[in-house]
Amino acid sequence: MLRILTSGESHGPALCAIIDGLPAGMPVDLNGINHLLALRQRGHGRGKRQQIEHDAAEPISGVRLGQSLPGPVTLLVRNRDYAAWQGRMQPEPAAERPTPITSPRPGHADFAGVLKHDLSDIRDILERSSARNTASLVAAGALCLQLISAIGIRVHSYVRAIGPVEADPPDASELARLAPAIEESPVRCPDTERSRAMVGAIDRATEEGDTLGGIFDVVAIGCPPGLGSCTQWDRRLDSRLAAAIMGIQAVKGVEIGAGFRGAGRPGSEVHDEFEISDEHGFLRTGNNAGGIEGGMSNGEPILVSGAMKPIPTLRKRLASVNLFSREVVPAHYERSDVCAVPAASVVGMAMVGIVLADAAIERFGADSYGAFLRSAAAWREALAERGYTGARWLPA
Amino acid sequence: MLRILTSGESHGPALCAIIDGLPAGMPVDLNGINHLLALRQRGHGRGKRQQIEHDAAEPISGVRLGQSLPGPVTLLVRNRDYAAWQGRMQPEPAAERPTPITSPRPGHADFAGVLKHDLSDIRDILERSSARNTASLVAAGALCLQLISAIGIRVHSYVRAIGPVEADPPDASELARLAPAIEESPVRCPDTERSRAMVGAIDRATEEGDTLGGIFDVVAIGCPPGLGSCTQWDRRLDSRLAAAIMGIQAVKGVEIGAGFRGAGRPGSEVHDEFEISDEHGFLRTGNNAGGIEGGMSNGEPILVSGAMKPIPTLRKRLASVNLFSREVVPAHYERSDVCAVPAASVVGMAMVGIVLADAAIERFGADSYGAFLRSAAAWREALAERGYTGARWLPA
Amino acid sequence: MLRILTSGESHGPALCAIIDGLPAGMPVDLNGINHLLALRQRGHGRGKRQQIEHDAAEPISGVRLGQSLPGPVTLLVRNRDYAAWQGRMQPEPAAERPTPITSPRPGHADFAGVLKHDLSDIRDILERSSARNTASLVAAGALCLQLISAIGIRVHSYVRAIGPVEADPPDASELARLAPAIEESPVRCPDTERSRAMVGAIDRATEEGDTLGGIFDVVAIGCPPGLGSCTQWDRRLDSRLAAAIMGIQAVKGVEIGAGFRGAGRPGSEVHDEFEISDEHGFLRTGNNAGGIEGGMSNGEPILVSGAMKPIPTLRKRLASVNLFSREVVPAHYERSDVCAVPAASVVGMAMVGIVLADAAIERFGADSYGAFLRSAAAWREALAERGYTGARWLPA
Amino acid sequence: MLRILTSGESHGPALCAIIDGLPAGMPVDLNGINHLLALRQRGHGRGKRQQIEHDAAEPISGVRLGQSLPGPVTLLVRNRDYAAWQGRMQPEPAAERPTPITSPRPGHADFAGVLKHDLSDIRDILERSSARNTASLVAAGALCLQLISAIGIRVHSYVRAIGPVEADPPDASELARLAPAIEESPVRCPDTERSRAMVGAIDRATEEGDTLGGIFDVVAIGCPPGLGSCTQWDRRLDSRLAAAIMGIQAVKGVEIGAGFRGAGRPGSEVHDEFEISDEHGFLRTGNNAGGIEGGMSNGEPILVSGAMKPIPTLRKRLASVNLFSREVVPAHYERSDVCAVPAASVVGMAMVGIVLADAAIERFGADSYGAFLRSAAAWREALAERGYTGARWLPA
Repeated sequence: MLRILTSGESHGPALCAIIDGLPAGMPVDLNGINHLLALRQRGHGRGKRQQIEHDAAEPISGVRLGQSLPGPVTLLVRNRDYAAWQGRMQPEPAAERPTPITSPRPGHADFAGVLKHDLSDIRDILERSSARNTASLVAAGALCLQLISAIGIRVHSYVRAIGPVEADPPDASELARLAPAIEESPVRCPDTERSRAMVGAIDRATEEGDTLGGIFDVVAIGCPPGLGSCTQWDRRLDSRLAAAIMGIQAVKGVEIGAGFRGAGRPGSEVHDEFEISDEHGFLRTGNNAGGIEGGMSNGEPILVSGAMKPIPTLRKRLASVNLFSREVVPAHYERSDVCAVPAASVVGMAMVGIVLADAAIERFGADSYGAFLRSAAAWREALAERGYTGARWLPA
Repeated sequence: MLRILTSGESHGPALCAIIDGLPAGMPVDLNGINHLLALRQRGHGRGKRQQIEHDAAEPISGVRLGQSLPGPVTLLVRNRDYAAWQGRMQPEPAAERPTPITSPRPGHADFAGVLKHDLSDIRDILERSSARNTASLVAAGALCLQLISAIGIRVHSYVRAIGPVEADPPDASELARLAPAIEESPVRCPDTERSRAMVGAIDRATEEGDTLGGIFDVVAIGCPPGLGSCTQWDRRLDSRLAAAIMGIQAVKGVEIGAGFRGAGRPGSEVHDEFEISDEHGFLRTGNNAGGIEGGMSNGEPILVSGAMKPIPTLRKRLASVNLFSREVVPAHYERSDVCAVPAASVVGMAMVGIVLADAAIERFGADSYGAFLRSAAAWREALAERGYTGARWLPA
Repeated sequence: MLRILTSGESHGPALCAIIDGLPAGMPVDLNGINHLLALRQRGHGRGKRQQIEHDAAEPISGVRLGQSLPGPVTLLVRNRDYAAWQGRMQPEPAAERPTPITSPRPGHADFAGVLKHDLSDIRDILERSSARNTASLVAAGALCLQLISAIGIRVHSYVRAIGPVEADPPDASELARLAPAIEESPVRCPDTERSRAMVGAIDRATEEGDTLGGIFDVVAIGCPPGLGSCTQWDRRLDSRLAAAIMGIQAVKGVEIGAGFRGAGRPGSEVHDEFEISDEHGFLRTGNNAGGIEGGMSNGEPILVSGAMKPIPTLRKRLASVNLFSREVVPAHYERSDVCAVPAASVVGMAMVGIVLADAAIERFGADSYGAFLRSAAAWREALAERGYTGARWLPA
Repeated sequence: MLRILTSGESHGPALCAIIDGLPAGMPVDLNGINHLLALRQRGHGRGKRQQIEHDAAEPISGVRLGQSLPGPVTLLVRNRDYAAWQGRMQPEPAAERPTPITSPRPGHADFAGVLKHDLSDIRDILERSSARNTASLVAAGALCLQLISAIGIRVHSYVRAIGPVEADPPDASELARLAPAIEESPVRCPDTERSRAMVGAIDRATEEGDTLGGIFDVVAIGCPPGLGSCTQWDRRLDSRLAAAIMGIQAVKGVEIGAGFRGAGRPGSEVHDEFEISDEHGFLRTGNNAGGIEGGMSNGEPILVSGAMKPIPTLRKRLASVNLFSREVVPAHYERSDVCAVPAASVVGMAMVGIVLADAAIERFGADSYGAFLRSAAAWREALAERGYTGARWLPA
């Protein structure tokens, strides 16, 4: 049973994640975690904050001499910016409370949060609702990605659209080859030409004081069939993936495979037929199902898409109302990004890693890394005996 | 803490749901539950099974003399068809096993389920993965809808698209007025003309031995701001709604509010600005957020959309492979629907009811119906004091 | 992940349990379940109700042709007595409410339940708080016991004390041999002479209109080391066992191994030293730890004891107060047992079964019975390689 | 929904607790937390480690300007001793692994942990299984105690027995008066004479290289009736308390109220009868039930006892076996306490605080501190209307 709690305010001392239930004895690659944290910080359209922070995961527990211990892993990601905010954010009482924020930003947690928690300063909610917290999810997810990578599951992500600029998604079998191009693109889009157009769109939005959203895809390759379950709705793999992707700040839509596009076409065109080959055993003629049928992985690449709304903090300030005086005022402005879809695509990778690691642990146990690997290997062998190898879509 | 487990096979003795954690003393309207079950069975394009079954919820526990007891409610929905299936589905061992199903249907749990659970008969998985189980979710959800209705939350649903035929979604404020039209439409679409076109599309698919999917919307009106949370991804209301809607069989996409459409437009057009009126207090200029900001209800109508793929059991049989002999064969055919989007829209209403009841219980407690109502009333009063009344979008 | 919900009122139509997460393909022995249900009904000191009921588990789902399916198992245990209670217990509203119960019984849920749930009839709480619900737990637990029995874990229980009469607990290695004697004893005590004294004590209590409690032991033999965890308090095996045993009606104390007796002795006498033998590998010089060290099974017999208070419904009625008129009155009397410790010992066995099955599933997975067995076998082999065989305490 | 995860190794950089789900706006008294941490460190019989550490909780998140934020609270408790252990405990790989520990200590997690997690160094398990982790539970529990204190629930604890020396437990109504004496006693025992005898017993054990256990009581005063539930075994308050107390390292027994003593007496003597007074409304003639009937608080003082086995690390080393060479050797010795029952009694208070805060949040919600208080006040008022005031046992 994998349990993860994250904590931390955007301008507090640090973000934190406790990851409970990983196998003991797993090699922990701290550089790998930090690399994913760095990817999250990048992307054309990010704000000044990313120049202040150089996120790094500091293991406080659960890792000894390069390997996971039986106990939970704790990762701290310190906020360098806290130094500048201490007076306003310190845990101790202060002689004087700082000036409160009073005009909620449309699209943010500000309004609902103040009413829910009965607050007198919007800062009390925005510090937690801020997407800065995704740094702790990325740190936790990076560990999970390392775990499932050891049983052959590789998770990729890329940006498919920014604002009105959309690129064609690459084939899953191309992703290993395209990974460097994705990392090099300023918007994590493998299509160089579209990548450039996306940068242009972000630049225009920046000039106009506006913001942009977009669409990202996460693809998990090498996942054996049978993760997840059809027996209760909350154990389905697609249900859990949808929760995880919709759980990322600003995401307003999730699709598995053909998603909404599949809803408009007849069954005879949408469902992925079976065929058989001497070399590979059972194969499919397509992957509109996005690797999930009946709430379970079916062995094909798992394809999840997320739609991110534009960043709700605009330099061109939106209309708001002071929550206390009830005067019409412009919304609060706080240093922010113009576009964070590339970052969201990295977070999406982390979230998919968390869900798949959870499902894999459910299947293979988590007492020790050795037992986890042996159990997964035994499972792949049993699948192969039944004719499933799943190799065709693996990169050559 | 609301906990729900459902159980039951499609052709077993009965479906069952245990609903644990409802307030005691709540009036239970069995006719209301049965009405929702009847709505689920309806819809142009349903198969023969719906003529055999007349679903009714039989309370086995938790309801006494018309009111909920402190203990969990158990609802049985019997399968009339079991009479015809007893020999193949009985719990007791049989002298001879019935002929197994061996050729998986593309798009179903068949393939992944057989590999996951190491089965020799596809029936062992399809009986549970079948959407027939949604009858138990609808029964449970109907109870939840009755609970939240008592604190002023009304949940509507309708079909927005079937196959290629799409209708314009009505405004949330029109839904109470349109409710009878939705119930009368053979496809649960409030637009009479589009409704007819959808029926035509289903008829054509039926003739061709094909199937259709579509899109449904669920709208919850009257939800106070502050249900859900921004503090952990798995407590967000949008995350929980996404899981619940994606947890319905054949759903491959979920949107909150503008969803994917919002991802392509600039922030200045997408975010719903604030305004203030003497009469209503805080108001919004739109509802692209679909009633959820920062993972919390914001007081506006909650709008969730689900994309349903076409039914994967086709009379025009898809290509499959015998899982044991590995010969190429047509997929197994089992009596099925041609289109079940209207039914899915009813299930969607039930799932949203479950999520909102869970969030409301978290907020207002569930010791007794009286305390639940009083706590919700105190909350609405506190909101009104802070200037939130949320009345503008309520039907006149 | 094993999830179990039970439901049902004492005089409602039926008790129900949904058991979600058992491996598919497990042979289900309905006679075995019914045998445990029958054991629960037996015992000197039980009331008239046990003559009315002949509990049997009716599988409504999850079992097909003698084997578990991937979907959850539902077991109904019908209340024959419902026929006599229908007018007072029916789910439908009645023209007239039956006379309410108004004087709470000391020791029962009556008083707290009425206040918590804001009830006007004590029956509304006592119907659920009644220990009759343990029939559904025994049915669920019996299934779990069948699962863990397949990997070599056998769970025994017996009565150690009834009222002031206490017997010496037998050695764990004797339990397989003593099992028939335990079943034959009218109080589930393996010591014939003490058994007779217990019967005498119950008879005297019956004559005096009084009731008796006692102590029961549950012993799980053959449990491999490493179930449970030391990494979080709520994952510890002893924590989970304590919750399960204290979760049985009327239990007020739980011990693991030497329990309270071990608290009074020095460490050098209490801790079970290690030794090694050519034949058996690592051995222990005693089992004061009760088979659990550091929150994990250590391979020795797991020994859990429960203290049951006397039945709180007395024919010699205790003093009470009418909750509405506030007059001093005798407590409500409802047909009841004089002593139910033998029954509780059977329930204890079921609860231990549930906890161990949960821990085993966590370790070995639950996709299929075959994979579960193979994973457990691989684990035992790995343990043997490290020198653990655990054989000495197995019955010769 | 209160969720708590703790983490940290005994000689790692720090212990950590994330506490998720507390009400926003709650005053957080850091000194109060640190005071409880200091109490945990005290007690005659503690080892050298307590002279190295001066535990203090460092809030990393969730507390701003003296009040809780909506987001989770993170508390770090740094290990000063880490400075001396860094080379052996660092997260980064080391050129050389330190000498492993190979001989398991009887009574510890060592043996089961090495087998479960497939370890080659006992240190990898003992660092987490160490009772040092209770510092993080005490920090988390201190916060919970502050929360429930605001609704009138005070939790006390004291030591009832150390080794063979047992004191009579004081009456619950005396505890507020005795609190200073308990804090001043070197063994947290309010009886000065017995306190001295306990110190003597510890001194003798120290001389002999032996260790001692004992019994502690935790008493919660002022808890309104109706926390917990009788409707599912895992929601019962006694079940949750038993899990929490048995979840403390070295605890082997738990009792509620009369516990095992109540099992030997007839029902007419054990159950607490009702009476009524003009001043106080409903009253009880005793509290053998320990404040819990039917799995719910009944308004009387909640009384939970824990039995702690003697510390399993002995200077007079117990017999062990090298896990790798299989030679008979003395058990590993690691700096340890001779007696930690006073510390366990403080941890017990924290654990009871966690369980009661969880149950109170379930009942009163946790959106804001203000709403939590108002909901609890409304509840107490409703109880008073029904005749429950619970005042008699409150200290004069």
